[in-house]
Amino acid sequence: MRLSQFHLHTTKETPSDAELTSHRLMLRAGMIRKLASGLYTWSPLGLRVLRKVERIVREEMERAGAVEFQIPTIQPKELWESTGRWEKFGPQLLKIKDRKEQVFCYSPTAEEAAADFARQELSSYKQLPVNFFQIQTKFRDEIRPRFGVMRAREFLMKDAYSFHLHDDCLVREYENMKAAYSRIFTRLGLDFRMVQADSGAIGGDASQEFHVIAESGEDALVFSTGSDYAANMEAAIAAAPGERPAASEAQRKVETPTQKTCEAVAALLGLGLERTVKSIAIMSTDGFVLALVRGDHEVNEIKLGKVAGLQGYRMASEAEIATHLGSEPGFLGPLNPAQPIRIVADRDVAALADFVVGANEAGFHIAGVNWGRDLPEPEVADIRNAKEGDRAADGGELKIARGIEVGHVFQLGRQYAQALKATVLDENGKAAVMAMGCYGIGISRIVAAAIEQNHDEAGIIWPAAMAPWQVVVCVINPKQDEAVATAAAELLAQLQAAGLDAALDDRGLRPGQMFADMELIGVPHRVVVSERGLAAGTYEYRSRSASEAESLDRDALLGRLAG
Amino acid sequence: MRLSQFHLHTTKETPSDAELTSHRLMLRAGMIRKLASGLYTWSPLGLRVLRKVERIVREEMERAGAVEFQIPTIQPKELWESTGRWEKFGPQLLKIKDRKEQVFCYSPTAEEAAADFARQELSSYKQLPVNFFQIQTKFRDEIRPRFGVMRAREFLMKDAYSFHLHDDCLVREYENMKAAYSRIFTRLGLDFRMVQADSGAIGGDASQEFHVIAESGEDALVFSTGSDYAANMEAAIAAAPGERPAASEAQRKVETPTQKTCEAVAALLGLGLERTVKSIAIMSTDGFVLALVRGDHEVNEIKLGKVAGLQGYRMASEAEIATHLGSEPGFLGPLNPAQPIRIVADRDVAALADFVVGANEAGFHIAGVNWGRDLPEPEVADIRNAKEGDRAADGGELKIARGIEVGHVFQLGRQYAQALKATVLDENGKAAVMAMGCYGIGISRIVAAAIEQNHDEAGIIWPAAMAPWQVVVCVINPKQDEAVATAAAELLAQLQAAGLDAALDDRGLRPGQMFADMELIGVPHRVVVSERGLAAGTYEYRSRSASEAESLDRDALLGRLAG
Repeated sequence: MRLSQFHLHTTKETPSDAELTSHRLMLRAGMIRKLASGLYTWSPLGLRVLRKVERIVREEMERAGAVEFQIPTIQPKELWESTGRWEKFGPQLLKIKDRKEQVFCYSPTAEEAAADFARQELSSYKQLPVNFFQIQTKFRDEIRPRFGVMRAREFLMKDAYSFHLHDDCLVREYENMKAAYSRIFTRLGLDFRMVQADSGAIGGDASQEFHVIAESGEDALVFSTGSDYAANMEAAIAAAPGERPAASEAQRKVETPTQKTCEAVAALLGLGLERTVKSIAIMSTDGFVLALVRGDHEVNEIKLGKVAGLQGYRMASEAEIATHLGSEPGFLGPLNPAQPIRIVADRDVAALADFVVGANEAGFHIAGVNWGRDLPEPEVADIRNAKEGDRAADGGELKIARGIEVGHVFQLGRQYAQALKATVLDENGKAAVMAMGCYGIGISRIVAAAIEQNHDEAGIIWPAAMAPWQVVVCVINPKQDEAVATAAAELLAQLQAAGLDAALDDRGLRPGQMFADMELIGVPHRVVVSERGLAAGTYEYRSRSASEAESLDRDALLGRLAG
Repeated sequence: MRLSQFHLHTTKETPSDAELTSHRLMLRAGMIRKLASGLYTWSPLGLRVLRKVERIVREEMERAGAVEFQIPTIQPKELWESTGRWEKFGPQLLKIKDRKEQVFCYSPTAEEAAADFARQELSSYKQLPVNFFQIQTKFRDEIRPRFGVMRAREFLMKDAYSFHLHDDCLVREYENMKAAYSRIFTRLGLDFRMVQADSGAIGGDASQEFHVIAESGEDALVFSTGSDYAANMEAAIAAAPGERPAASEAQRKVETPTQKTCEAVAALLGLGLERTVKSIAIMSTDGFVLALVRGDHEVNEIKLGKVAGLQGYRMASEAEIATHLGSEPGFLGPLNPAQPIRIVADRDVAALADFVVGANEAGFHIAGVNWGRDLPEPEVADIRNAKEGDRAADGGELKIARGIEVGHVFQLGRQYAQALKATVLDENGKAAVMAMGCYGIGISRIVAAAIEQNHDEAGIIWPAAMAPWQVVVCVINPKQDEAVATAAAELLAQLQAAGLDAALDDRGLRPGQMFADMELIGVPHRVVVSERGLAAGTYEYRSRSASEAESLDRDALLGRLAG
């Protein structure tokens, strides 16, 4: 490949709306161009990287036994209604009317269509298990598309759907896919972690996410130093607290005229923040509920929504708070509500003695509160976020890192197949609803995530497998110096013969400009062919990650690059 | 590849709504499944064939110097309005409103978006020429989607857009693309022809189509025996007629009480049909026009619409005919109209003497009519379809065959770039609007077209390059007979080592069922490994196109398949 024949177009300007490093660098490198909000054209350079990711994903899916198919991007409303997801997916679903006023959507994922295909194709348990995958453009109508291809509306995704007669077969394929995903991200050369996840809108029995570790990641990931336990903050669980100490203080009302936060109350009283309790007033379908977490903890909305009866809860209004507690926000607590209320205490709150809560009276808190004495024993649940330094269930310590979700695997169970009546005849000739798994990878997002993880001030630092080219031979003065141009072309042929994805930068740019381009677009290895080098029988070699260039003769160079 | 691990699902039933052979065979072979009207899921088998076509198209586009990029499928209305095509494309354009009520379409082609990308990326003539291509799902909201993937609404297309400073550069790239297309269809193993075409809705200066020859083709193609002249019927031109003979008859009114067609009038008068003239009454934006073609010819609506002033014409109503000609249909003619009218005569009508026309009076025609004597010399144009047996301009004879359009190349000129202000600085530093070419291939349609051209009663007969596998090794009793299974696996490895795309049919089906499947899905070469064959040291080999199987030893088999 000669870069004079390849359309490369880097720019110096940083667009003002590009907040994220990967977005800025992809624009500067000329990998993508914006067509409209959340819609990007992939330039030849960008597409070259995207295709490398796509190829590795395809190879590993096939190695894992999955077979590729392709579902239309445009799918009928009726299909989505059969599982209730037409409504459930909400405004992210791009809805479309055709010329005959039939209603469709642009597929954001394809559980329904895959189950529909399986229903037509699979009739006997002998055809199972089978795992169908596709690599396809998807669309999600994000309310605030931003960060370039990290959260684009139109994006490239690998989605796979497996079908099984028995649950244990689903579990085996789930493990098989987890292993395949680990191979994929390992081959891509990314620092990644698999974490336990909440199944969210897709639903199902178990799910795990794959994250690329990066400081700019949207997700907080929780790890234990004591084992390989790792979970998304949404799902992460700290060790259960120790036994509750005995009560040692009397209950007392304290004046807190302007202290509306736990921090302020703790400071006023000279207490540790972990002795205070935050009261969160919410409305469930059954009525008013007060959720309690320690002052130094944060409520986890996903966990709270999983407590029996609290699915789909919302925050209570000030009027609702006044009605049920007789107080204004800032002084809320479980004692002396205006009406009987349901209380849900976090495990760590239930383990407290001598704690502080709001008095349900403006300007006052109550200290020295104890369960069993001042309040009945509460309903207990884990409703808080794990926290850096928490003890883990395995005895280790919890650490937090940030990640970018690039893959997600689900054990869906039978909900989709049931809704779509996707059955096969089992060993006894009876119709049995199939168990399903689904497995996604955000291919275009991986490109951005890799950049978030691997860059410096000069630009992108691609892992070898994702680089547009592994090595670029830069030619100084190709038009003026025929000997140099010939030597460079020969070297290119030798590198390609050695199995390297190599290109020749014969664009005739000034060396500084050429080198800056190669650093910006993240080429792992750069070789310079110059008149002076030829005279000395050497090439100037520089690794993208090294600070200095070296002079190497041809054998040394080939040895270095092949190694 | 082992077929027991690949999802293959053939069926015997022929769906009632599948009219076309390729549609029926693709459904029976299990290559596609219908999701909704005009929307098909590609099964693993179908996708395997589709990807083979895609790969060849990509390789040849790259060999021809084009670079791949990717434009979003969802494109903003404003972009399409800038060239007037939002309206012009009509209801085929699938229109979409997003959650913010912004209006988009699903790209049916991408001239605007490509020109928009070029506007952002290209600033200097030094970056030219460049040819960007993509292989991508497109959508056209066909009013009557049918024939399976032959005319699906969602389909896979290769579209390319080239940019040039000068017209001669565009012409060179156009020729380069024509050569690339010929290589593509040659490699695919298809009987194809390149024909001159009308540019239609895309517009531009010159265009040619590539057709797969097949009896079921929707398009009539016209060839000359005298040269390589070939054209779509829309654009085909016969040789100009010879000189007009001298008038030899007097004009006379003849009674034709029930003779409303040229055929009936010719029969009544005992004249050749070529002496009669058909009058077609149309309304242009400037008013009533009478178009004349010989009784044995058919008017060509595309050619007629290209006559000055007739763009966008429509057929005249009976009332309009009565007003302008004073007659009812069946007896129309250019003589004695009720009002002065414009007359456009086909070249062959202008070359007639002593001809017959309607009298503009119910029940009468006029014979012995002559130009210059009975009528002023007419406005002349080629407005008829070419006809089998016509003389060609090159002196040969015109022949007609039917074809399926699978590719189309256009010299667009500057209309799109002008509308989108896609300019570069030229050699003199002045802004110059770029010239554009565009080049399409219907990748999914090629699959159906290949089947239309290559099939028999047993099923599909794939050309080697498109076959899901070149050779399948069929194992008799793989589960009962370990020696046979082992020998088959060894043979598979040898075939693969010889570079063949080979698979093993280890599904354990009965031989007849297995062979019928292989014939239906069109595998070019079938090898049977059986206990009896092993004992004799032979394999049963059958080519898909041969009527009989042969017994071959291993060397002979490998020699045959490698050859």
